[in-house]
Amino acid sequence: MAKDNQFVSQIADIETDFPQWYTDVVVKTKLVDYGPVKGTMVIRPYGYAIWENIQKELDSRFKAMGVENAYFPLLIPMSFMTKEAEHVEGFAPEVAVVTHAGGAKLEEPLVVRPTSETIIGYMMGKWVESWRDLPLRQNQWCNVMRWEKTTRPFLRTSEFLWQEGHSVFATGEEAETETLNMLRLYEEFAKNVLCMPVLTGRKTEKEKFAGAVATYGMEAMMHDGKSLQSGTTHYMGQNFAKAFGVQFTGKDGVLEHGYTMSYGVSTRLIGALIMTHGDQRGLVLPPPVAPVQVVIVPIAAKKEGVTEACAALCGRLQKAGFRVKLDDSENSPGWKFNEWEMKGVPIRIELGPRDIENGKMTVFRRDTCEKNELDLAAAERETGASLAEISENLYRKAEKRMHERIVDADTLDGLLKGVDGGNFVRAGWCGCRACEDKVKEFAQATARVMDKENSAQKCVVCGKPSVHTVLFARAY
Amino acid sequence: MAKDNQFVSQIADIETDFPQWYTDVVVKTKLVDYGPVKGTMVIRPYGYAIWENIQKELDSRFKAMGVENAYFPLLIPMSFMTKEAEHVEGFAPEVAVVTHAGGAKLEEPLVVRPTSETIIGYMMGKWVESWRDLPLRQNQWCNVMRWEKTTRPFLRTSEFLWQEGHSVFATGEEAETETLNMLRLYEEFAKNVLCMPVLTGRKTEKEKFAGAVATYGMEAMMHDGKSLQSGTTHYMGQNFAKAFGVQFTGKDGVLEHGYTMSYGVSTRLIGALIMTHGDQRGLVLPPPVAPVQVVIVPIAAKKEGVTEACAALCGRLQKAGFRVKLDDSENSPGWKFNEWEMKGVPIRIELGPRDIENGKMTVFRRDTCEKNELDLAAAERETGASLAEISENLYRKAEKRMHERIVDADTLDGLLKGVDGGNFVRAGWCGCRACEDKVKEFAQATARVMDKENSAQKCVVCGKPSVHTVLFARAY
Repeated sequence: MAKDNQFVSQIADIETDFPQWYTDVVVKTKLVDYGPVKGTMVIRPYGYAIWENIQKELDSRFKAMGVENAYFPLLIPMSFMTKEAEHVEGFAPEVAVVTHAGGAKLEEPLVVRPTSETIIGYMMGKWVESWRDLPLRQNQWCNVMRWEKTTRPFLRTSEFLWQEGHSVFATGEEAETETLNMLRLYEEFAKNVLCMPVLTGRKTEKEKFAGAVATYGMEAMMHDGKSLQSGTTHYMGQNFAKAFGVQFTGKDGVLEHGYTMSYGVSTRLIGALIMTHGDQRGLVLPPPVAPVQVVIVPIAAKKEGVTEACAALCGRLQKAGFRVKLDDSENSPGWKFNEWEMKGVPIRIELGPRDIENGKMTVFRRDTCEKNELDLAAAERETGASLAEISENLYRKAEKRMHERIVDADTLDGLLKGVDGGNFVRAGWCGCRACEDKVKEFAQATARVMDKENSAQKCVVCGKPSVHTVLFARAY
Repeated sequence: MAKDNQFVSQIADIETDFPQWYTDVVVKTKLVDYGPVKGTMVIRPYGYAIWENIQKELDSRFKAMGVENAYFPLLIPMSFMTKEAEHVEGFAPEVAVVTHAGGAKLEEPLVVRPTSETIIGYMMGKWVESWRDLPLRQNQWCNVMRWEKTTRPFLRTSEFLWQEGHSVFATGEEAETETLNMLRLYEEFAKNVLCMPVLTGRKTEKEKFAGAVATYGMEAMMHDGKSLQSGTTHYMGQNFAKAFGVQFTGKDGVLEHGYTMSYGVSTRLIGALIMTHGDQRGLVLPPPVAPVQVVIVPIAAKKEGVTEACAALCGRLQKAGFRVKLDDSENSPGWKFNEWEMKGVPIRIELGPRDIENGKMTVFRRDTCEKNELDLAAAERETGASLAEISENLYRKAEKRMHERIVDADTLDGLLKGVDGGNFVRAGWCGCRACEDKVKEFAQATARVMDKENSAQKCVVCGKPSVHTVLFARAY
């Protein structure tokens, strides 16, 4: 137990200092490290493997929707950014700019993409000619850059990895439908792959993407009750199509502008799952994305047959399709327990001489921190069942917390009390920007998403009739 | 046949104007398009799908070697570049530089990575402490930027996609062995996945990577007899370890610098396979990376049962694991034949009422342009066998051409005549830079790789005793 305490003491208290807990966990588990330039991160192998699993799951979903992957240039002419008025206003303050290249000053400065609506709009303007070319659905997995003042690994860094999907449709209706379909795709993915419940809905004008007609977001509740925007989809109407000449000849022979939409999630999702599932011991990784789903720790490894039995079990489970690691290092079992618990491996199997003799294995579940003795002969089935139970349990736990922590308020004081208590607060809103700003000023909370139905009577700020019921929260 | 000619006429003659043939093919088959900034490219879905297949094949090979993926920042402090003297000399002239970000001038300009030895060296310096941390093998799939004067899609563009692997070892011997092992991995990959024969060997001092002790390259012969450098591996000795303080405590307790190596291939490989296998009709894609391996074209599609039979066949082949497309568009069969031949699909299956009645299918092989009637009932087996034969045949054809076109020379005139005739020329070299430069000046050819054995008697330029037998060629 001394070792246990020693490890736990390396991580700040999750309840009293959640920001430090987060930093401790992401650095000590080697998910990430700080890069040499302020605000940059290095995604280390253990973190990158989570990203690869996220990519694989999302990519197959996109492809099933008819989306094709492509790659567009990193550098965007500065003049492109200014073609959509709201877009430049939103992104210009945070872009990084290439002014020199190949030993000379460039004629026009180039922006390192903060997002690619403009350059993809330009290319789609070249490609789309007739209604036969539509819909056009493309996606890219790439790096983007937004120069942020305060940064934190995965949550907000100057450079991050993401996917950005961009599609053109012949009608606004189709583009809007796709915008909502992609939001549902993200929601399903969050639930089934990240084991993370989310709330989805439309964003307010203030919170929407710069240049969009409508932005939809999914928000997840973190351990501290704050919200993390985990994915967004945007309906652009004809804004970008007009700015970049994306035109097509319709079936009726008439030339018309297309309707575009875009959608993205990023390495921020790694931050989201850490802050959703983590506990005092460290990471708790959802089985579908865990780089190691099962770690096997030999007990009394020098006793006859233990090493062989562990290797055999490892081989069996790998063959069954699980991601398994056999920790046959020189460290003590207690050290290994702590290490892999901190690293959030869903299942630990301990196998010693007595287990082997009895045809048993000791299975530790990271989510409940409980041990069970299970049949060694049924290891494949038991592992599969346990991983499924862990996924289910992680989701249910997070969902229960989220629902317990959504409260209603009909006054600003009530709203403040709600968010101070680590809750999301549902309240009426008249729809005006002044009242939205007032909430921010008074309670340091922002409108996360709007409910589909307006169930509130009056605006939580001014008392005028409510137009939208809004979920307010403090957010990352 | 009118349509046939119409299509062929869109592509420049492969024998008399190979550069234009290349441009025509990559643009018309929608592999790639030109980006808005000079020297940039957009990799379109058909091209990107090839890259995804390349990535998948290479990535599994790297992982089997114990390499882990990670992600390092795009922007590198300018001061890092200058820490290794040769490195900065080699790369400084072609970097793009970020001078402004977040609305302000940066204190230190940041370089958009042309390669990541410096920043990865810096991070590895932080991570490596003891011999227990070694070997450390990491790789990243990312974009890099080199501001080039003359550009061509896939072959040379200001931005391109690649993988760069970087490893640290405790001894120079291990690092050198890994450098050669990775070269062999690339060679095996080129053969079995790209169906492309390559010649491998060490580069001369002039041609080596800026900062390396030794660079090894693989060179492939293109249709026009020119060479394309298709992959390189570099042994760095302690050059970068010393520049970035990559030090470890050995088993003996002594602090020592590590030995590093790196290796990379890029989207250039797509250009390589196009120029290796392509013909007058357009692309000829190797089955292992072809986005579509089999296209099914219905004949007399409106006749009863044809559409259903084609869909059933498509389903069967997809289930068997092949990448299959059923072209049920409104276009005529002749139009489809041309389109998919130009796009290089390895196998076309034509299925009409008579075929169905006879239990047959007509199979067109893109490599030989021959048609065969095969049993419909054995479609899975026949398709697998044909794809394997195509891969084998593509490799043999390219290998035969390459070996026929390697000639020996013992005079500069002979060397010039050789490369003028579209050959690689094997010749003796005294090892001095002046003679290497003379070959370039006289024959516009460069030293591609050096043979392991020095089989030549004297230097092709100065006549002094030969120290290395060198493969000279004109190169992309």
